[in-house]
Amino acid sequence: MYSFKNDYSEGAHPRIIDALVKGNLEQTDGYGRDPHSENAARLIKKKINRQDVDVHLLVGGTQTNLTVITAALRPHQAVIAVQTGHVCLHETGAIEATGHKVVAMTADDGKLTPALIQSAVDAHTDEHMVQPKLVYISHSSELGTIYSKAELEAIRTVCDANGLYLFVDGARLASALTAQTADITLPDLARLADVFYLGGTKSGALFGEALVIVNDALKPDFRFLIKQRGGMLAKGRLLGIQFECLFADDLYLELGVHANRMAMRLKDAFTAAGVSMLSDSYTNQQFPILPDTLIEKLRQDYKFEIQQKLENGMTAVRFVTSWATVSSEVDAFIACFNKLIKH
Amino acid sequence: MYSFKNDYSEGAHPRIIDALVKGNLEQTDGYGRDPHSENAARLIKKKINRQDVDVHLLVGGTQTNLTVITAALRPHQAVIAVQTGHVCLHETGAIEATGHKVVAMTADDGKLTPALIQSAVDAHTDEHMVQPKLVYISHSSELGTIYSKAELEAIRTVCDANGLYLFVDGARLASALTAQTADITLPDLARLADVFYLGGTKSGALFGEALVIVNDALKPDFRFLIKQRGGMLAKGRLLGIQFECLFADDLYLELGVHANRMAMRLKDAFTAAGVSMLSDSYTNQQFPILPDTLIEKLRQDYKFEIQQKLENGMTAVRFVTSWATVSSEVDAFIACFNKLIKH
Amino acid sequence: MYSFKNDYSEGAHPRIIDALVKGNLEQTDGYGRDPHSENAARLIKKKINRQDVDVHLLVGGTQTNLTVITAALRPHQAVIAVQTGHVCLHETGAIEATGHKVVAMTADDGKLTPALIQSAVDAHTDEHMVQPKLVYISHSSELGTIYSKAELEAIRTVCDANGLYLFVDGARLASALTAQTADITLPDLARLADVFYLGGTKSGALFGEALVIVNDALKPDFRFLIKQRGGMLAKGRLLGIQFECLFADDLYLELGVHANRMAMRLKDAFTAAGVSMLSDSYTNQQFPILPDTLIEKLRQDYKFEIQQKLENGMTAVRFVTSWATVSSEVDAFIACFNKLIKH
Amino acid sequence: MYSFKNDYSEGAHPRIIDALVKGNLEQTDGYGRDPHSENAARLIKKKINRQDVDVHLLVGGTQTNLTVITAALRPHQAVIAVQTGHVCLHETGAIEATGHKVVAMTADDGKLTPALIQSAVDAHTDEHMVQPKLVYISHSSELGTIYSKAELEAIRTVCDANGLYLFVDGARLASALTAQTADITLPDLARLADVFYLGGTKSGALFGEALVIVNDALKPDFRFLIKQRGGMLAKGRLLGIQFECLFADDLYLELGVHANRMAMRLKDAFTAAGVSMLSDSYTNQQFPILPDTLIEKLRQDYKFEIQQKLENGMTAVRFVTSWATVSSEVDAFIACFNKLIKH
Repeated sequence: MYSFKNDYSEGAHPRIIDALVKGNLEQTDGYGRDPHSENAARLIKKKINRQDVDVHLLVGGTQTNLTVITAALRPHQAVIAVQTGHVCLHETGAIEATGHKVVAMTADDGKLTPALIQSAVDAHTDEHMVQPKLVYISHSSELGTIYSKAELEAIRTVCDANGLYLFVDGARLASALTAQTADITLPDLARLADVFYLGGTKSGALFGEALVIVNDALKPDFRFLIKQRGGMLAKGRLLGIQFECLFADDLYLELGVHANRMAMRLKDAFTAAGVSMLSDSYTNQQFPILPDTLIEKLRQDYKFEIQQKLENGMTAVRFVTSWATVSSEVDAFIACFNKLIKH
Repeated sequence: MYSFKNDYSEGAHPRIIDALVKGNLEQTDGYGRDPHSENAARLIKKKINRQDVDVHLLVGGTQTNLTVITAALRPHQAVIAVQTGHVCLHETGAIEATGHKVVAMTADDGKLTPALIQSAVDAHTDEHMVQPKLVYISHSSELGTIYSKAELEAIRTVCDANGLYLFVDGARLASALTAQTADITLPDLARLADVFYLGGTKSGALFGEALVIVNDALKPDFRFLIKQRGGMLAKGRLLGIQFECLFADDLYLELGVHANRMAMRLKDAFTAAGVSMLSDSYTNQQFPILPDTLIEKLRQDYKFEIQQKLENGMTAVRFVTSWATVSSEVDAFIACFNKLIKH
Repeated sequence: MYSFKNDYSEGAHPRIIDALVKGNLEQTDGYGRDPHSENAARLIKKKINRQDVDVHLLVGGTQTNLTVITAALRPHQAVIAVQTGHVCLHETGAIEATGHKVVAMTADDGKLTPALIQSAVDAHTDEHMVQPKLVYISHSSELGTIYSKAELEAIRTVCDANGLYLFVDGARLASALTAQTADITLPDLARLADVFYLGGTKSGALFGEALVIVNDALKPDFRFLIKQRGGMLAKGRLLGIQFECLFADDLYLELGVHANRMAMRLKDAFTAAGVSMLSDSYTNQQFPILPDTLIEKLRQDYKFEIQQKLENGMTAVRFVTSWATVSSEVDAFIACFNKLIKH
Repeated sequence: MYSFKNDYSEGAHPRIIDALVKGNLEQTDGYGRDPHSENAARLIKKKINRQDVDVHLLVGGTQTNLTVITAALRPHQAVIAVQTGHVCLHETGAIEATGHKVVAMTADDGKLTPALIQSAVDAHTDEHMVQPKLVYISHSSELGTIYSKAELEAIRTVCDANGLYLFVDGARLASALTAQTADITLPDLARLADVFYLGGTKSGALFGEALVIVNDALKPDFRFLIKQRGGMLAKGRLLGIQFECLFADDLYLELGVHANRMAMRLKDAFTAAGVSMLSDSYTNQQFPILPDTLIEKLRQDYKFEIQQKLENGMTAVRFVTSWATVSSEVDAFIACFNKLIKH
């Protein structure tokens, strides 16, 4: 039984494991005040070519999202997000639990647009309504799609026009930056977003997200917020060591390249067989629309998630690849799929 | 420079590291729904000799404290804690950030008493005041002291009389249970507390706290709260593997024994030299009261925390040992200390 | 310039004013512990023919909504409401500020249905999502529409099937209960809702909402929540006196009858002139769809709100009547309207 | 049975009642956007001789306190208050319910000092602790005491030195400003505080507190916060009319003068009889320490609150006077008291 269920099924890339083992008995100060965390921040700043940003390492994505949002907003201010966004649907109301409304906009492809953002702003006219203040986008999105540089620049423009912060959830950033259709670089991201993060959990680390705060207004006292919301790891150097490995050279992006390559082989197999895809994804999540009968058969040997029940006995399912996806297992899956689909 | 600064300076016990390395490329489901987490829960239930409890594995202590408290209390209800308690002082208002007041009681030795609890309850008389509902104690306390079985039973009695939950923060439980003066066992704890946790971060794990919910009223929907507050680790099996190691045999308590043994050698050295101690601790935190001049000299070779400035050029400092404290380094420190104190 | 802008433009019904003046120098205890508040509760219980309910008097609607919801829900639980519901749109995120998500469902007529409720429940499947627990409906709705007894019973059934509380916002209950199409009585409401309120602010009082808690699970410690959220009026007898006046006889419903009668005359005038209405309302809010040119002219003599810009130079506007609407002013408006529309 | 239980036993001053009756059927816009509210703000600005402040009218004190604090603080920031302060003890954790810790300092006379404030600041050293940011004082205090101008200036200095806001709860400001020992004026208050309020509820109004925001940093979007926290009265002009009456001439202060005069007659009677006072109050709250046997007898004819049980059968009780306290009833009480104390 091989799993394409998600990109956090395995542990960490072997180089990360080696580094953790090697430094295990070192003594360092806690809570991110250690040489590894400092060095990781330095390496990340170098990759994005900006010395004026703040870098913080947090354990997980939901935690990072809720900490950024609680730090950025006053009590009456709200987030604008697409209805499939992680903060809308899959965080058990974590944002609302910090007191903030998420204004959810409908989009078929998992992406916000300037028009959707403007319409959310325009719908909120006075003090009887929340005040939209932060735009949340995921890159890649929950449907595997990515923003082009032009799209991101247009979003930046509408944010500037309306005094909005732009926050990019980069849980799957390694895959997004290395997709064959991608034209956004890390320096672009730092230029266009007020705050974003480089996801580690889904890109080779045991856990960890590297948050980059670009906008000075969001920097003060950020460590207070991390601590208050439970996101400050006692042995913070565990995060430092992992991001040192990912950013000392190009490992982070290389892992994205591998995940995408595996995903594209799946996509090619699906489309070659005439299967429709729920979204046009070039990243590590693929959403084929399959007959329920075929899904049942595939499930005897493979794990994957149901995305959405459709009509006429069809269902969109989700296949996820990662840095750890084994090439021969992809071959085997494709063979199995091709065999089944012919019957 | 050797550090007695805290019990989270090093990584994890080598057996834990080995297990993490060994299982690194296994595929498991995420968010604690994996065989390792399930097995860890089974082993913990066996150690405390209770099948009817719920076990959840969370990443860190502040997160565990705030999740338990937010799950247990209605909005108008409050926590009773000693003023030196971790939730009062060292969590950046994490409990208040979930909406709950912590009623802080003054105690010199870091421990709540039935009289203090009753007095907190009696001071809150009607709907213009918060309603105390949960008693928070740390075992061992932030001053290294521990509760005797008789003391804990008396606290249980006052809780029952007033309809209060008893929550035991066991961040340093391994040390508390194995102190030479200890008479409380894990099954005692499960009998007397409504909810408690077995700290991993400070007892041999990379990170992790194993929460045990005994009282049925606190069990429903607990995973929703863990997720909402950001405490649900995607690769949950990392927690499972670590607690499997700690509880497959007696490793957890053995690590406490070692930490205490190192601490008692420090204590013996301090008291032999006529040094007063801020608290009478038999656990892994020791608080000698030293002249500032001596502290300055010791700091050239050793790291430790300042606890409290006192009068006449004296200061209480904190020395912490752990599972990782090296015996020969304790010898070296004692030699250094004895040499300095004679001058 | 006469105003049809809202139903809180004037002060209170003269009988209420008289009672307030008369009791002005009485001395009573504060915070709702006075004979008037107790008597008001008694009168309300009699009207709804239930002795087993709790009655609380609060100052305003947003306050009442947020207090009920914070009292009813655990932190991971959510409200289901229609997207035009007051808690969704017009309370500045007051519900989210207490930590709870409002799951907004789309409906053209301002009303939830069993199907919408079930679909909201079904969309939330596990601990990665909020848990819907309370259904919020307004009766009459923000579009002036009302629920029939059969509709409310069907909603009750779907609530029971899914373990949901049903909360009825009765800010405009007097108008809803007395509409010509209404078949729900106060005792029906107490039988079908878990908690509801009888709005005073928009029905003859200076301010005040009388909350009725039917479900025992929602009763404990409710006064703590009122106080904590700032809703406990020091001179609580002001609320008591007003609701004594409204419920000593049938004044409350009579004021609804008057408001509706004025509204129906407006509606008749609009429809006689061939004007389409945004909703089919028989209560004190009417939403004619008018040409922008006509609106501009009407605004020279009348105040009313813009509800929604539509296509082709048409706009839905809102006319609101109340207990205080003067019959001759309605005549004058209709004359003016008829004159303008002919040109 | 005459009541000295509190200063909110009666309704409103007759001039206020008259104005409310007179304007009852006027039509005005809601939510504080009416000519009366605007005029009240203008009159208040004139009295404090500052045009650059923002004035908002809210219904009650707890609501005002929680709205100001939630508007002023970021999530990790805390309030410094004396342990007897209203926000510490008598608001059911309303401040904590907005997410903020109140750092409570001990003072016998109900007043903060620069030393207490500095000590609260100094005890909070890093991101593991909350960050004190706002000083809350009540003037007069909950023990009837008041700040001198020199004391308030010294508090301002320590606030400036530490970047703290100063918030003055003026629920009993009319009495505080007119005490025979008072040397602070309204313009002083506006010069020294960042934000303060002029209490109406306890000084002649049916309800209402006039909030004055001096510091520009606290002004933006304040109406959003009022609405979100449920403090925006639909018929806002009720607040406007009341504060128009209080500030059109010197009524507000005159009512304080009367309350104080009645209180001083009580104080004189107590001290003439050799009774000790819990605090040295020159305002409308007096705290005589009486034998329990005497208290029992007085209670047959008078209502008053128990403040604090003391030793040896003695209890501190609270007598409160107000704008409505009847002079002949004070005479009667004194006669009764003198008669009882001689036996």
